[in-house]
Parts: sequence; C-alpha cells; structure tokens
Amino acid sequence: MLTFYNEHHAQHRGPLVPYRGDMVPRHEQAKVGEQVGGEQIGLVLAELQRRGLGEIVTPHRAPLVSLERIHTPRYLHFLRSAWSEWIALDPANSARDAVASHWPIRTLRSDLEPDSFAGRLGLYSMDAATPLTGGTWNAAKTGADCAINAAHALRLGERGSFALTRPAGHHAGADFFGGGCFLNNAALAAQHLLDDGMRRVAILDLGYHHGNGTQGIFYGRNDVLFVSLHADPRSNYPFYLGHLDETGIGAGLGYNINLPLARGASAPAWFAALETACLRLGMFAPDALVVSLGVDTCAEADAGFGLSGADYLRIGERLAWLGLPTAFVFEGGPAQPDIGIHTVNVLEGFETSA
Amino acid sequence: MLTFYNEHHAQHRGPLVPYRGDMVPRHEQAKVGEQVGGEQIGLVLAELQRRGLGEIVTPHRAPLVSLERIHTPRYLHFLRSAWSEWIALDPANSARDAVASHWPIRTLRSDLEPDSFAGRLGLYSMDAATPLTGGTWNAAKTGADCAINAAHALRLGERGSFALTRPAGHHAGADFFGGGCFLNNAALAAQHLLDDGMRRVAILDLGYHHGNGTQGIFYGRNDVLFVSLHADPRSNYPFYLGHLDETGIGAGLGYNINLPLARGASAPAWFAALETACLRLGMFAPDALVVSLGVDTCAEADAGFGLSGADYLRIGERLAWLGLPTAFVFEGGPAQPDIGIHTVNVLEGFETSA
Repeated sequence: MLTFYNEHHAQHRGPLVPYRGDMVPRHEQAKVGEQVGGEQIGLVLAELQRRGLGEIVTPHRAPLVSLERIHTPRYLHFLRSAWSEWIALDPANSARDAVASHWPIRTLRSDLEPDSFAGRLGLYSMDAATPLTGGTWNAAKTGADCAINAAHALRLGERGSFALTRPAGHHAGADFFGGGCFLNNAALAAQHLLDDGMRRVAILDLGYHHGNGTQGIFYGRNDVLFVSLHADPRSNYPFYLGHLDETGIGAGLGYNINLPLARGASAPAWFAALETACLRLGMFAPDALVVSLGVDTCAEADAGFGLSGADYLRIGERLAWLGLPTAFVFEGGPAQPDIGIHTVNVLEGFETSA
Repeated sequence: MLTFYNEHHAQHRGPLVPYRGDMVPRHEQAKVGEQVGGEQIGLVLAELQRRGLGEIVTPHRAPLVSLERIHTPRYLHFLRSAWSEWIALDPANSARDAVASHWPIRTLRSDLEPDSFAGRLGLYSMDAATPLTGGTWNAAKTGADCAINAAHALRLGERGSFALTRPAGHHAGADFFGGGCFLNNAALAAQHLLDDGMRRVAILDLGYHHGNGTQGIFYGRNDVLFVSLHADPRSNYPFYLGHLDETGIGAGLGYNINLPLARGASAPAWFAALETACLRLGMFAPDALVVSLGVDTCAEADAGFGLSGADYLRIGERLAWLGLPTAFVFEGGPAQPDIGIHTVNVLEGFETSA
C-alpha cells in the first residue's frame, strides 16, 4: 500500500470555526467537543508508520489542467485568488476566514459571475460552515495531487494506494465548495484513471455523509459508476442529495446508486448494504476502484453506524475480494483516538487479502 | 393617504445580528454603524404623524389562505413553527436566533423536505444574514396584513395607501426567506387586487437592491408586470438576479423589466430610468400599481444613488401622473434621521398631485 501524504494539510486552518450559526475561536470549539480538523491526519499517519504498511511519500505536483477535467476554470481561478482578494478588501480580514453569506438557490442565477467578492464567494459555495483560509488553496491543491498520484500509482502497477489528505473532497462539486471540501479528490482520481486509458472506473463512497459533490459531477456519465452508503439525507447532512431515487440522468441513467441507511442503523444493516454495493460494482466490471474512505461511521462518532475496529478490517477484506486495483482517498472522520486504527484497518484488511 | 401600520414589527428582533460573516451582539453592530432595523419605522411613523398626511390604522387580519396565494403551504408551515422547533432542539437556543448553514444550490435538490430542522432551515432560506427570531412570524404576518389591507383600501375607493411595516418583503420568494424578508408584502398586495377582481396589476420596485423575490414569484405570469430600478447585481446584493436580460418566461415573457444602474450612478441617471419604467407601466395599462418603496437610494445610505429630499417629492409626483390607484409598501432604508422625511416626501408628492 503506497501512501501519498499531504504534508501541507494543516495550512487549511483559520482562526475561527463555525459552531451552531456562530463563528467562534478555534480553542472554544475544541472545548465543546466538535470536530476540529487536522488532528485526524496525524493519528492516521502515526498508525500507518507504526504498522509499517508501506512507503509514505509526498506527491508529484499535478498540472492545473488535470483539475480542470473535473472543476470549472472559473471556480479554480476563484479558489486560487480568493484569499488575496479577501484581505485586499480589508487588512483586518487577515484575522478572520472568508465565509459566504448568500447563495444562488432556486429562481436565482448561477450562470453569471458577479464582480463582487461576496457574490462570487456565495456563487462558489454551498454552505456557511466551510471557511476559506489563507492556506486553503495550497492544502487543497496538494491533496488533489495526492489523489491523482494515488490513481497514477495503480497505472504503474500498484494493487492499492492511499491518499492521506485533508481538507476532504466528496462534498465539493464541479464549481462549488462546502462540507469542508474544496477539490473533489475522489473524482479527480477517477478522472485521471480514465484519462490515462481506462474505460470504466467505479467510485465507492463509504463516508457517513453522502458524497453529493461526487454524485453531481458524474450524474450524467456512464464511464464512472458512483455507489454510496450513507446516512439518510432526510435527517442527515447534506440534506439535499443522496436519496434512493437518484439513479443518474441521460447517458448516466443507472450509473448512480445511493444506499441510504436510517440514522442509527446497525453495523449488520451497513454490511448488508455493502454487499449490495459490491454486487453492483461487480456487474459494472470497472478497470479500477476509487474508495472515498470516511470513517465517521464508527461507534466513537457523534452519529455513525457503530462500526468497530474489527468491522474496518472486514471492509478492507471485502473490497480486496473485488479483485480491482484500488485507490483509497481519505475523507475524514471524528477527532477520536481510534480514527487511525480504523482507517489503517481498512488498508491492512485490503493488503492482507488475496 | 391611508396608512396601515405594523405595530408588531419590533417583535422581529433577535439578540444577535450578522456582521461580516460573524454573529455579533446587536449593540456592537450598532456601534460599527450598520443598519440595525426597527428604528426606521419609528422615524417614518413620526414624520407621517407630524405632517398629518392621513389616517394611520392597524390592519384587519388576513386569512392564511391569502398568504398561500403567493407562498407555498409547506414554507408557511415552516415559518410559523420554526421558532418553537428551534428552542425544542436546545433550550439554550432561546438566547440565539436561528440562522441557516446549508443551502440547496445547483445539483442539489429542493423538491424534498428534510426531516432535520437544519435541513429545512436551509431549504427555506437563501442566506446566512436573515436571523429567524421568536417574534419573526408575528411581525411578518402582521406586515402581510398591512400590505393586503393597503391593497384592499384601493378596492374600497382610496386613491393611495401605504403599508408601513418591517421586516421588508421584496427579497422573499414563494418558498424562501432572505435579505431580511420573510413574506413578500408587495406580491401579496398585487395578488389580492387580482383576486378581488382586477385584471392586471403592476409592481414598481424602487429599492436600491433588486427585488429578486417578487421577480421570481411572477416571472411566468402576464397578469403582473414587474418593473425594477436597482443597483447592478454584478456588484450589489442580491448578486444572482436583476440583470437586464431577465424578461420573463413562458406566458410571462416581456412582463419582467429590470433597469439596473451602475453602482454610484447619479440621481439624473436614476430619474431617466424612472421615465423608462413609467413608459412601460403606461403601456401595460394596469388597473392598479403596487410600489415597493425602499429609500436606500438616498444620499445618506452607504451606497445609494444620491437622491435628496426634493427628489423623493418628485418621485411621488411622477407616480401620481400615472393616474393609477397606488399601494405603497415600505421596503426599508438606512437607519438615518432623514429616512422619515424621504419616505413621507414620496407619499406627499403623490397625494398633492392631481
């Protein structure tokens, strides 16, 4: 298992964090027990090193044009320049993150880019819970590099690879950030495999929350199958996507599979859904698999499906049985001590199975 | 000029107010000179009383079904029950307003109503700058009553009427709040006139910001002409609607007229646009006119078009020349001492012209 590690991930960290509609200093949020971000990566890295599961390397830089295969040029341009625009508006802004306040929902337009920074910040985001900080672009770009390198490693003959990065990616759309995500790492990995000659690639999203960004990106395409196990969006973030009846559109009809589980569903119910997912993955017969690996399904999470350490080993073993070159992309999990164990258990389960 | 006054307007007031992406205590926001809300109404009321421009009365209560002519039943149900749901989630919520964090932008769905309160709060809003407070529903409903009563007064033979209320209305859509607006008072007034037997009604929106909600509500209809003078949305809130090329759709094609003006445009430029608006209003030959009267176009506003007190008199005179029964609906303005003078100048200009 070759791991690409984003050593710049901590650059995505601002002085304030959103908490229940307020922006509060980071240390206060830590006090109230919310997810802080960043610590998880260190726990996973330490566990990887402890077990010696394979080489841990820094990625080569992918060209911007590879990001434009998934994200729109104007969105990428905004992400790259947003922080300098933000502090140019007011020098005092360097002490606070940029957070959007207005969004182009139904009846409003998304086709025109406002001149106003506030207008563009809202156009390119889906929530008020994803602050854009001074280091966001560098952290997100290096994370995308990790994902693309992990995909490329499969082309170079690796059976399994791992992109260990934050910010996460699966909530980010072709032209918007949100849910803590800026660039869709899993989508970039899948697209790289196709651009490098594969015909069909599947993405399996195992995070607790639905990967709305990934679904939206591939919803009209039949060269990427998107399968997601997640908490029912009727009662869980991201609320507005991830339902059973979303099966794709146009050429993509039948190539989007959502398997929502009720809040508080048990580990056996989750594994039954995983079997359904694996069956559909097998029928698609892809050349490779990309796994959006969120471990916020664990018993230690605030919500979650009560999965244990042994369950995560079993997940890795089950995915290995698919017999596909597989790139794992880290999508995060709760800031709990066991997050490293859970994550590396999936990878070790995969590695140690034939 | 018969005025319907919303004596419950101050019930829409929470402990925190949005300021540059943060939620800050109200007194701090007042300190930094932002618009506070509520004080404007008192200034307009005092000026109306000082000039003795006509009777000032409280409105009769309109039935909920009259709101359902413009707003969706599920949105109205949410607005009515939101505060009790919010404090049921956490008793500590009674000390903070409800502000949404997530929005169903492009690729996300608006057709399903989540069970989650946070999900519904986002579904039914367009920004993070419009806190929902304990008294919001009562203030907004009484404001809608004022607008519907002002419309009805025209049916009873009044030449002019005025709904003096807040929160404002013209940013609120059929099923979302935002921009400080919850119920679209101008739309409700126009619809009441149609439901009471008129064939065609025009709405003229004079606020500095585009009335995106009103436009969206009538965009496919030809029984309501919507004409708006406002600051170019490329650089001004609400950013995502109000462009010149938005002329209506289907049966409504040609019945939506936007006259955006560059930020910093002068009073003469504004009056030239008003002439264009009046020409189009005359061609439509409506049975009555509803005016969304925002006076944030004044020289005292942070932005604005530099309109003076004399200019507001002239506006009222020009509208009187249209010879239409006219209901004015207050859409707010900056918390400046002259706001009362400006607003009542429009009404007096209208009253004193033949």
